[in-house]
Amino acid sequence: MHTEDNKKSSHVVWHEATVTRARREAANGHRSVILWFTGLSGAGKSTLAHALEEQLHCLGMRTFVFDGDNVRHGLCSDLGFSEADREENIRRIGEMAKLFTQAGVIALTAFISPFRSDRDRVRALVKRGDFIEIYCHASLDACEARDVKGLYARARKGEIRDFTGISSPYEEPDAPELIVETGSRPLDDCVDQVIRYLAECGIIKA
Amino acid sequence: MHTEDNKKSSHVVWHEATVTRARREAANGHRSVILWFTGLSGAGKSTLAHALEEQLHCLGMRTFVFDGDNVRHGLCSDLGFSEADREENIRRIGEMAKLFTQAGVIALTAFISPFRSDRDRVRALVKRGDFIEIYCHASLDACEARDVKGLYARARKGEIRDFTGISSPYEEPDAPELIVETGSRPLDDCVDQVIRYLAECGIIKA
Repeated sequence: MHTEDNKKSSHVVWHEATVTRARREAANGHRSVILWFTGLSGAGKSTLAHALEEQLHCLGMRTFVFDGDNVRHGLCSDLGFSEADREENIRRIGEMAKLFTQAGVIALTAFISPFRSDRDRVRALVKRGDFIEIYCHASLDACEARDVKGLYARARKGEIRDFTGISSPYEEPDAPELIVETGSRPLDDCVDQVIRYLAECGIIKA
Repeated sequence: MHTEDNKKSSHVVWHEATVTRARREAANGHRSVILWFTGLSGAGKSTLAHALEEQLHCLGMRTFVFDGDNVRHGLCSDLGFSEADREENIRRIGEMAKLFTQAGVIALTAFISPFRSDRDRVRALVKRGDFIEIYCHASLDACEARDVKGLYARARKGEIRDFTGISSPYEEPDAPELIVETGSRPLDDCVDQVIRYLAECGIIKA
């Protein structure tokens, strides 16, 4: 029960995993990494991730965007918003993103992920160079001014507890691989900036 | 904090997910499904999954095998072996496999998954035809006779609690999409059987 034990048999002979990450990357023509977008609510993380994914897909690459929509209702549906649950939420997202990189896929994650410790734990899960922290920078004023879903207004009224930037801190990345000025630059420029970075690092072909 | 809210902005314009599963499947040239291997410890689930993956990869397909090695130490590292934890383990594997299918990848899962209710819950997560239950059939005698890791011997001695087949039931699938006689047929035949099935269903090209 506790482990798989298909090591050998008289009939079905033992067969190790032979399709490695390296073979997948070779087949795909690009490296697989985690692009970890972090920033305030409304900073444009999900927007940038999806726009970038569109470009990468058109270039023939394998990608997947994780966001609240496909994670909170599924894999993390058992979690609430306590401190422990938020930490566990980010941990699972990190582990899942890691599996996607092992599958040869570029994993883009779009979560506020306000705490350095949580992000650093994900970074520590994978080998050097596999975790690319992309800080989507927009001022709180700008994010609050947009307030597309009215979340900031509700947070100001005290209707949402522990709202990042209002009643809970956002810890800026100390040394992110990239800072993208999503608060002031056009989307296309932001996408180009990330693509240039990926090409410079040899993750995708220039 | 609670949701992503990048719906619109004066700078980074709202951008929905545009890279759909259908576009990924078209790019890959095959459908993405969950191949759920179930059966006793030692029946050959992981062996068959990896051998099948090798074939599919060589045919240019996108695949990924989930097994105890890459799940129990990562995504499910917080879980033990209580009834509730085992159920949660299978739930998460199902949710993760579902995300892989959304990413266009054929997800192969190799877990004993002894309970019908757990397997049926995963089946219910995805649309009809996306969950293919493959029963790796081998007699308990055969599995116990091999006992590559000595787990059956330890279970008989009472050193492992709730060991499937010995001190915990294995509930055979009622109506699996496939039954593969991994206990008595050569591995290549078993692989061929699954590949024929996938081609017949139009999941991969014949």
